[in-house]
Amino acid sequence: MKVRLLITGGTIDKFYNQSNGELEFDKTHFPEMIKRARIEVDLIQEELLLIDSLDMVDIDRQLILDRCENSAEELILITHGTDTMCDTAKLLGEREINKTIVLFGSMVPYAVNNSDALFNFGCALGSLQLLEPGVYVAMNGRVLPWSDVEKNRDLGVFQPSSH
Amino acid sequence: MKVRLLITGGTIDKFYNQSNGELEFDKTHFPEMIKRARIEVDLIQEELLLIDSLDMVDIDRQLILDRCENSAEELILITHGTDTMCDTAKLLGEREINKTIVLFGSMVPYAVNNSDALFNFGCALGSLQLLEPGVYVAMNGRVLPWSDVEKNRDLGVFQPSSH
Amino acid sequence: MKVRLLITGGTIDKFYNQSNGELEFDKTHFPEMIKRARIEVDLIQEELLLIDSLDMVDIDRQLILDRCENSAEELILITHGTDTMCDTAKLLGEREINKTIVLFGSMVPYAVNNSDALFNFGCALGSLQLLEPGVYVAMNGRVLPWSDVEKNRDLGVFQPSSH
Amino acid sequence: MKVRLLITGGTIDKFYNQSNGELEFDKTHFPEMIKRARIEVDLIQEELLLIDSLDMVDIDRQLILDRCENSAEELILITHGTDTMCDTAKLLGEREINKTIVLFGSMVPYAVNNSDALFNFGCALGSLQLLEPGVYVAMNGRVLPWSDVEKNRDLGVFQPSSH
Repeated sequence: MKVRLLITGGTIDKFYNQSNGELEFDKTHFPEMIKRARIEVDLIQEELLLIDSLDMVDIDRQLILDRCENSAEELILITHGTDTMCDTAKLLGEREINKTIVLFGSMVPYAVNNSDALFNFGCALGSLQLLEPGVYVAMNGRVLPWSDVEKNRDLGVFQPSSH
Repeated sequence: MKVRLLITGGTIDKFYNQSNGELEFDKTHFPEMIKRARIEVDLIQEELLLIDSLDMVDIDRQLILDRCENSAEELILITHGTDTMCDTAKLLGEREINKTIVLFGSMVPYAVNNSDALFNFGCALGSLQLLEPGVYVAMNGRVLPWSDVEKNRDLGVFQPSSH
Repeated sequence: MKVRLLITGGTIDKFYNQSNGELEFDKTHFPEMIKRARIEVDLIQEELLLIDSLDMVDIDRQLILDRCENSAEELILITHGTDTMCDTAKLLGEREINKTIVLFGSMVPYAVNNSDALFNFGCALGSLQLLEPGVYVAMNGRVLPWSDVEKNRDLGVFQPSSH
Repeated sequence: MKVRLLITGGTIDKFYNQSNGELEFDKTHFPEMIKRARIEVDLIQEELLLIDSLDMVDIDRQLILDRCENSAEELILITHGTDTMCDTAKLLGEREINKTIVLFGSMVPYAVNNSDALFNFGCALGSLQLLEPGVYVAMNGRVLPWSDVEKNRDLGVFQPSSH
């Protein structure tokens, strides 16, 4: 059972650039996270993008969609910025691809103290292997289907949109 | 959907006692971990034990079994030392309790750099909500049934015993 | 021997604001850092400002100068953003206050992985107690007098300006 | 101005061995710490020993003494376990070597959360460059001469023995 991990950036992968004092992208932290988590699942990493999800445009989402449709694996994890994670989930969900796809990210970068990154990664990978085909968002310890998930910006949490 | 979290100790909850330089138990780190992980699942913590799983005796396992059988929730997480996690899983599994029970722990304490604790917690909580009733071990990104899991001490990983 | 610690902000005290994804100021991390460092020196903390040193204006520096001149202690530590640390040091140095004053900060926030904050704090506090009266900058493991220090922005290090 | 850093082990350099769950020695963390601290001082590392200071015997201290006497540098840092740090300091101090020697360590390993290691390293390196020749212990933000320092085991701090 192989899993494809599509990396697109988002808060989870930002690092502190000490030259300008900004949180930016350099390289993904997933190789380090995978080693630390001692994962025994066969995981194929693929870095598609390394961008803020507010900067994601149609062509970026098209790229993600293509890779979901065309990669050989039936289990797909996607790292994603939280601001437009639900939009990408919806785009993928409406295509009714016959695969299990779980999107996740974090509210605090992996490289910053007190990050939720590793927890969300664990939750996403654990549930990916058990879910029916479909598109889901795994955040805050919950796994929600693309058709019923939204980010509550005031609380900083993901919740059912039928909430 | 409520989840009961039964805390029993193990490596995941050890801390560094600077008076004697030993890794010991003081209090559980789960309240801090739950806050950090920004969990939105209704999680009831219950500290049953705070011991090394090599020191766990029959009466300790009986206590865990009783709490699994008698607590109101149908979804139960159990933190556990890795050395005898599979033994406790087997004891619980053979009782055929009609609940979903997932055991997890970590190879490196939460309080030590580079810990796998948060990842395993995420994996356990995510899969708990999706699994059929039964008893499982969630470690190394995999969720394995009690009847087919063992700790490979040489590699420091959990694997199917039919491996 | 009492030490006054004047807190003014800078990179060292920034934290990650998950609502907007920016590094900002909330409250100082020094109470936590002092506890962690197990300091036995009599240290009086005073939060003067909590700002980026690029935003520091004349009236801010005047406030720092006043507190240096008017506080009872002869040993003074000042936390400061790195961008204008040398400017403030020069202003204080030219006043020839008969006290020992050491400025420090960090290139990476205390709240971000791999921070140099604790190291610089230790270097500043250790040297403060040994230096002749005057104004100094303690960064990169070196203690440099206000009259011969500059930030090399390309390298991200402090060096003698006569370098 | 060159500094020699003699590494001997102690709590500061222990790491968590996940095979047996013990805090042990593997390799020194100082290359990582030096990089993180962004040190611009010319620092020559030399790993003499990697042992618990309770296991240190006469021949080990003789080795440290020899290296202090025979290395070319006049500024020497020594990392050391806290339990017998004052004994080694006394042995070196009584030899009246005409160099500046500062011993330090930490109460919590660098590899464990909330460590004082980086702070003590900064304090030791900062003060080393300012002290008169002699032998000192830099712990808890204080720099104490070998002839007037002891570890208070109840409090877990170093203090003047004339206290």
